[in-house]
Amino acid sequence: MSDGAPAPLLTEVDHVAIAVADLEAAIDYYRRTFGVTPVHRERVESDGVEEALIAVAESYIQLVSPTRPDSPVAGFLERRGEGLHHVGYRVTDCAAALQAVREAGGRLIDEVPRPGSRGTTVAFVHPKGALGTLIELVQE
Amino acid sequence: MSDGAPAPLLTEVDHVAIAVADLEAAIDYYRRTFGVTPVHRERVESDGVEEALIAVAESYIQLVSPTRPDSPVAGFLERRGEGLHHVGYRVTDCAAALQAVREAGGRLIDEVPRPGSRGTTVAFVHPKGALGTLIELVQE
Repeated sequence: MSDGAPAPLLTEVDHVAIAVADLEAAIDYYRRTFGVTPVHRERVESDGVEEALIAVAESYIQLVSPTRPDSPVAGFLERRGEGLHHVGYRVTDCAAALQAVREAGGRLIDEVPRPGSRGTTVAFVHPKGALGTLIELVQE
Repeated sequence: MSDGAPAPLLTEVDHVAIAVADLEAAIDYYRRTFGVTPVHRERVESDGVEEALIAVAESYIQLVSPTRPDSPVAGFLERRGEGLHHVGYRVTDCAAALQAVREAGGRLIDEVPRPGSRGTTVAFVHPKGALGTLIELVQE
């Protein structure tokens, strides 16, 4: 477009991430209440989290709990308690999407894409300058 | 199941709702950054909000701003600032899903389903007892 807006970059709401103190209790909540169970679990040491992914159509509910006290998710739980932590938007090309965010004046947490869970390539965009929303760009 | 968990109730992540102070600025952020634009806008007087829905595959990003000072979203913005406000899970039968939440011991905001935006039938589940997450059940 003439004003520099990119072509549509988002192909799916990849996941909604919910920070929880007790991963087993959170999994049990979703099973008892909505009859849904994780299709994938993973410990991501670099982020200091363990996550459980519940598939809902082409998206996931990502339950995420800290594995160590200095994990960013531990800090989030301390400040705000359990609740919505971030949203993951699926993109075709994480590096290209990151560049689009940069060109639009966004503030990046990851300057370059890095490995995410379940073999994805990801990058986080800072909530400051993104409507207060921590955004993860996810390339499968 | 023998422990009373229901059959799977969630058919889609219907929407991720982001509370924003300035709806036009928020729409502009998504257009400039990700090249996406609303497919629907609606003022919901009963909730004191105006919303813009950006379609991403079968889900929506719901940008929501208050239309009056006593709107719950106005209170949210005052307490926490802009950011993730709630998640909408699509269900086949809102009344049945609400009953499942009730039977699992969940705390309800809406005791019975009511009209939502774009002709949907909805009910909200209280974050207390739902991992700190405000959940909207959405039947299309």
